[in-house]
Amino acid sequence: MAHNIDLSGYSIRTDLAVEAHELAQQQNESNIEGIWLQADDREPNIKVTRLHVQTEEAGKQIGKLPGRYLTIEVPKLRENDTSIEEQVAKRFAVEFAAFLEQMGITKDQKALIVGLGNWNVTPDALGPMVVENLLITRHLYKLAPETVGEGYREVSAISPGVLGITGIETSEIVFGVVEKSKPDFVICIDALASRALHRVNTTIQISDTGIHPGSGVGNKRKAIDQATLGIPVIAVGVPTVVFASTIVNDAITYLLGHFGQSMVESKRAFNKLALSTVPERSEPYTEDDLPDMESRKTFMGLVGSLPEEEKRQLIHEVLRPLGQDLVVTPKEVDDFIEGVANVIATGLNRSLHQAVDGDNSAAYTH
Amino acid sequence: MAHNIDLSGYSIRTDLAVEAHELAQQQNESNIEGIWLQADDREPNIKVTRLHVQTEEAGKQIGKLPGRYLTIEVPKLRENDTSIEEQVAKRFAVEFAAFLEQMGITKDQKALIVGLGNWNVTPDALGPMVVENLLITRHLYKLAPETVGEGYREVSAISPGVLGITGIETSEIVFGVVEKSKPDFVICIDALASRALHRVNTTIQISDTGIHPGSGVGNKRKAIDQATLGIPVIAVGVPTVVFASTIVNDAITYLLGHFGQSMVESKRAFNKLALSTVPERSEPYTEDDLPDMESRKTFMGLVGSLPEEEKRQLIHEVLRPLGQDLVVTPKEVDDFIEGVANVIATGLNRSLHQAVDGDNSAAYTH
Amino acid sequence: MAHNIDLSGYSIRTDLAVEAHELAQQQNESNIEGIWLQADDREPNIKVTRLHVQTEEAGKQIGKLPGRYLTIEVPKLRENDTSIEEQVAKRFAVEFAAFLEQMGITKDQKALIVGLGNWNVTPDALGPMVVENLLITRHLYKLAPETVGEGYREVSAISPGVLGITGIETSEIVFGVVEKSKPDFVICIDALASRALHRVNTTIQISDTGIHPGSGVGNKRKAIDQATLGIPVIAVGVPTVVFASTIVNDAITYLLGHFGQSMVESKRAFNKLALSTVPERSEPYTEDDLPDMESRKTFMGLVGSLPEEEKRQLIHEVLRPLGQDLVVTPKEVDDFIEGVANVIATGLNRSLHQAVDGDNSAAYTH
Amino acid sequence: MAHNIDLSGYSIRTDLAVEAHELAQQQNESNIEGIWLQADDREPNIKVTRLHVQTEEAGKQIGKLPGRYLTIEVPKLRENDTSIEEQVAKRFAVEFAAFLEQMGITKDQKALIVGLGNWNVTPDALGPMVVENLLITRHLYKLAPETVGEGYREVSAISPGVLGITGIETSEIVFGVVEKSKPDFVICIDALASRALHRVNTTIQISDTGIHPGSGVGNKRKAIDQATLGIPVIAVGVPTVVFASTIVNDAITYLLGHFGQSMVESKRAFNKLALSTVPERSEPYTEDDLPDMESRKTFMGLVGSLPEEEKRQLIHEVLRPLGQDLVVTPKEVDDFIEGVANVIATGLNRSLHQAVDGDNSAAYTH
Repeated sequence: MAHNIDLSGYSIRTDLAVEAHELAQQQNESNIEGIWLQADDREPNIKVTRLHVQTEEAGKQIGKLPGRYLTIEVPKLRENDTSIEEQVAKRFAVEFAAFLEQMGITKDQKALIVGLGNWNVTPDALGPMVVENLLITRHLYKLAPETVGEGYREVSAISPGVLGITGIETSEIVFGVVEKSKPDFVICIDALASRALHRVNTTIQISDTGIHPGSGVGNKRKAIDQATLGIPVIAVGVPTVVFASTIVNDAITYLLGHFGQSMVESKRAFNKLALSTVPERSEPYTEDDLPDMESRKTFMGLVGSLPEEEKRQLIHEVLRPLGQDLVVTPKEVDDFIEGVANVIATGLNRSLHQAVDGDNSAAYTH
Repeated sequence: MAHNIDLSGYSIRTDLAVEAHELAQQQNESNIEGIWLQADDREPNIKVTRLHVQTEEAGKQIGKLPGRYLTIEVPKLRENDTSIEEQVAKRFAVEFAAFLEQMGITKDQKALIVGLGNWNVTPDALGPMVVENLLITRHLYKLAPETVGEGYREVSAISPGVLGITGIETSEIVFGVVEKSKPDFVICIDALASRALHRVNTTIQISDTGIHPGSGVGNKRKAIDQATLGIPVIAVGVPTVVFASTIVNDAITYLLGHFGQSMVESKRAFNKLALSTVPERSEPYTEDDLPDMESRKTFMGLVGSLPEEEKRQLIHEVLRPLGQDLVVTPKEVDDFIEGVANVIATGLNRSLHQAVDGDNSAAYTH
Repeated sequence: MAHNIDLSGYSIRTDLAVEAHELAQQQNESNIEGIWLQADDREPNIKVTRLHVQTEEAGKQIGKLPGRYLTIEVPKLRENDTSIEEQVAKRFAVEFAAFLEQMGITKDQKALIVGLGNWNVTPDALGPMVVENLLITRHLYKLAPETVGEGYREVSAISPGVLGITGIETSEIVFGVVEKSKPDFVICIDALASRALHRVNTTIQISDTGIHPGSGVGNKRKAIDQATLGIPVIAVGVPTVVFASTIVNDAITYLLGHFGQSMVESKRAFNKLALSTVPERSEPYTEDDLPDMESRKTFMGLVGSLPEEEKRQLIHEVLRPLGQDLVVTPKEVDDFIEGVANVIATGLNRSLHQAVDGDNSAAYTH
Repeated sequence: MAHNIDLSGYSIRTDLAVEAHELAQQQNESNIEGIWLQADDREPNIKVTRLHVQTEEAGKQIGKLPGRYLTIEVPKLRENDTSIEEQVAKRFAVEFAAFLEQMGITKDQKALIVGLGNWNVTPDALGPMVVENLLITRHLYKLAPETVGEGYREVSAISPGVLGITGIETSEIVFGVVEKSKPDFVICIDALASRALHRVNTTIQISDTGIHPGSGVGNKRKAIDQATLGIPVIAVGVPTVVFASTIVNDAITYLLGHFGQSMVESKRAFNKLALSTVPERSEPYTEDDLPDMESRKTFMGLVGSLPEEEKRQLIHEVLRPLGQDLVVTPKEVDDFIEGVANVIATGLNRSLHQAVDGDNSAAYTH
């Protein structure tokens, strides 16, 4: 959520490639060409999805830049169970190490880890919280190289803050630090927005496409990616918030499907619906009133017939008086963020430093 | 949210009397007997509602105990504007002082303020945060009475924690402390659950009915009220969370009303609706398919025809896979809670101690 | 530091029995009758001292109540090394379990743990921080006893706050909670004041004498011990602060000893001393001035000849303009307190619940 | 304390120019040439000292770079009194605005404020805490200039962290950010070490010499000053810590002076001194033992005759077993730092933005 200036962006897209792909497939009838997708749920509790957007064209269809996206989904991650957290940290380490290798990044190349987000806003504090728990070594290589054993690499880290606190674009700070500290690659950690409440704090996305806050013309300079930095940029993100209006949108879609499939037709029930939704009139409504009420049903029609983006925008507008343009997060956000930040920091420490393994990795986080 | 054991309670009720009354009125056609209600929005930005549940019978109809409920609603309170916060603190002080007077509590009676809730869960930390900012004087009266000037009263405070942290019912701790410290009346501060997202962190409720966690048989002993403590108990609450499924429920009701009133009947749109909600089939649907699809519309009917409680329960169940049994809070929860806690603490300091006024009250909070 | 009202107490005593005993022995020539002392440093890094004050008379001589005191000293505990912390937690668990057994407390008796101190003052936050990391079970025994496995006992906990926050004597709150929750014994966790900087955050004291804030007449009612509660009270304390004037006092004593033993007599050096300590005069001092300067040396004499308590009081007064009546703590206090709180919580969880061992105990703290 | 790598630096110098000057004057008999000093204590509670090191030569004598140093001393600042804090913020704003003007910095030049130090170490968190409370405007000038009224200037801010967290020299980060964000001048906020406990959290130093961590050859690149950045650098610092060994050093010097002046010569007292400092011997010492004990007195002589730096180093070494190489801070550090950070942030907001005055400045801090 480094991109917290352009919040409208949330309403028309998701930060997760798997969600964007699902949405696009719902609107198409067939598979999208140029998208390679592989799901792996062999390990209990964990589903890993690898999605490769292979062409510009495919990217446009799902609204995501060409590149590789790896998603780790763990519904139980929200249960605050340390053995699940340890399991996910382990898998994250394996997947992240393989992801780096696939990108051609070698074991002695220098990493700069950037913790994006606002440390004062709990659901946005993921990046800074990960940075606090990393095993940092760059200064040892510079000041006392003889003290660094085998199996480590140069790692540095920064939490640049957000525009409202610094007055400076995050990307400008990162560019400045990269120029001075000269890492070989950058890893950005960020809190994301999801379309689906069930993905909040249960999903980790790794991608090689960098960070692209907002969208559209003029924001190019804010991107933090290989094109702007000149070195590879890996983005690691976890959805921590969802638009209230998106909850409604998805719920309506889901409910329509749910009831449609599980119930027989019922004219009577349908009529009751129409009756039930008319709030005020002194005498009772009867079926005779139905013709006038047909209009009420049209909302679903109107809503349903709109393109996905416009539909969401409409719901968003309509619900503003209800406060549903709010971005929400689960009540237990403090615990959730702490847990997932620990998973990512532990996983990064293990995959960046070969000398760190399961037995000693807990010593670096707190 | 001292009542965080019985979360199911959230789905079938609201902590706010004004919401409960609205709901009850929607289901009845006429006014409910035994409810006295007065709204006052003469002051800009602020709407104060006084609701008196005068009989047991009326209480049953709206699901609230007989007693007085005062609600201060300030939609702009969420804008983090210090001048609004100061305005609300001032009004709160005036209303709270009048509320005490109406209860027969005099200016020299001793107050114990209880900050309910869990300090580790930001949206539940309202009570403990208010306690941190109170002007506490009881120990001065005991140890150095000559140092206490005119215009103060004995005030003590405690944050008893929650069952998961202490292992002890909050009410047991409060009973023990009341017995030992012998206050004349108790003020409980608590974070509440609302049915409506737009009330989250914008509404303050004051009532003379005490705290009644959960519902039903067997929980009587957990209540913190005049009956159990033997002294008056005033509850001050702010809704800080809402069930995700409630957001959906209310949105559907609202959308049905919205579109029904603003659009002309449109058979075509209605048909489109039905078509649009069928996700997978190779050949396009046509209007000929409509009869089979009527069933889809029935969900609204079934939902609409159910009693309010069952309807919400149904939506709750259906949406479980979407994670909508989650309790959510706005992303900016840290700022919101800090702001409203400051308003309440400042307001309490002013209304409990006559010597504290607008000029010096900020000195006691931080 | 629940006793933070009577800070003068710090200047005339130490909270640690081993220190009080050392001091008393320095002033006596022979061993004190009625004190049994045993030191055990067989385990690397750790020195355990068991001190038994067997008579009232002996207690008066060292200024400590009759009872058992167990001290775990770990100079390396301040190095923030997780393997040392794990080692100390293990040893603490063993010693604490033995201490309970010696007191006749059985494995199924119910514990209430009281975290004394002020959570807003880092060096005083030890007690509340330990409470946050305990495995609490009492509510499970009450609400869902079938879910509690073998090897656990009923444990509850409370952080009552300090007088400045609550306005109520801590002891009153504890009495109230004990009456309502009916534990079989109480464990109080508290931050202590030490005379010696090297003991700050490196020493843990366990005693069966309870908590006795302040001293002298009239404070009896504030004590939290078997006499006042009617059940055994174990106190666990860690020195986290030291008076600045005590640092000076001890340093002077130590320096006198150090130089006295390591250097030959040197009249010349002695004269230089006298010369060097006269700040302002236009012409240089010579040895001829010495007679007049003898007086300067007398401070050491005066100081040295005073009884220990008066000497410290004198230094305390003299140094007030230097700000040395301040109570100080190491700069790294945040890390130190977090580390030692974790050690104690882990140790308590293991010794109170047989089912908790080294492999799973970390899961309960965070 | 951005310079927390080279802590040995603390033992041989002070960060405060007024202290360095006092020390130098104690060792010289006359005023130091090239030092201009003016003290102003006309305002109650506040003493402002302006010290101008006019030549390289003078700078060497007091161990400070040539430049202007302004010190605001407020002994009562530690009393946590909001009216004193408001008074100091006001005076700070006036002095700081004048300081900028004297440096030739105009009202529309762009400021970058750098909050040095470690946010996880309370006594080192001053800089980051000030940054959190600043009125940041640079992004408004860039993104929505029409929204910025008269009387403001472009202000940005960053908390770069410390080497142990980032692995990157703080100066490198600042250089990078300055290059990208192009401010006209830089203000660095830092926690300092003092020689004197009574200056901790009661003194604010403003200087135009920038930040020079450590000392000696090879550290040039770490400096943050006009020479390295090419733009003016103002440093604002508050002493928050002191070496335990410095407390002892200064106390001894002070005690020698105190007793020397206030007491008559007393051979007897002197002898008692010698007797009292010999800890163990079975038979009592008598005056006959005195010749052998003369050596004990020599420590003061040896200590006194050494150059100031070596003397402190010696005490430092000797006291290591006592843990007196620790850097300490007052127990109330949390409150103190919060208070003084608030004073500086409020003062900076007022002096940097003409439109911010006493009435609205509190609205920007929290």
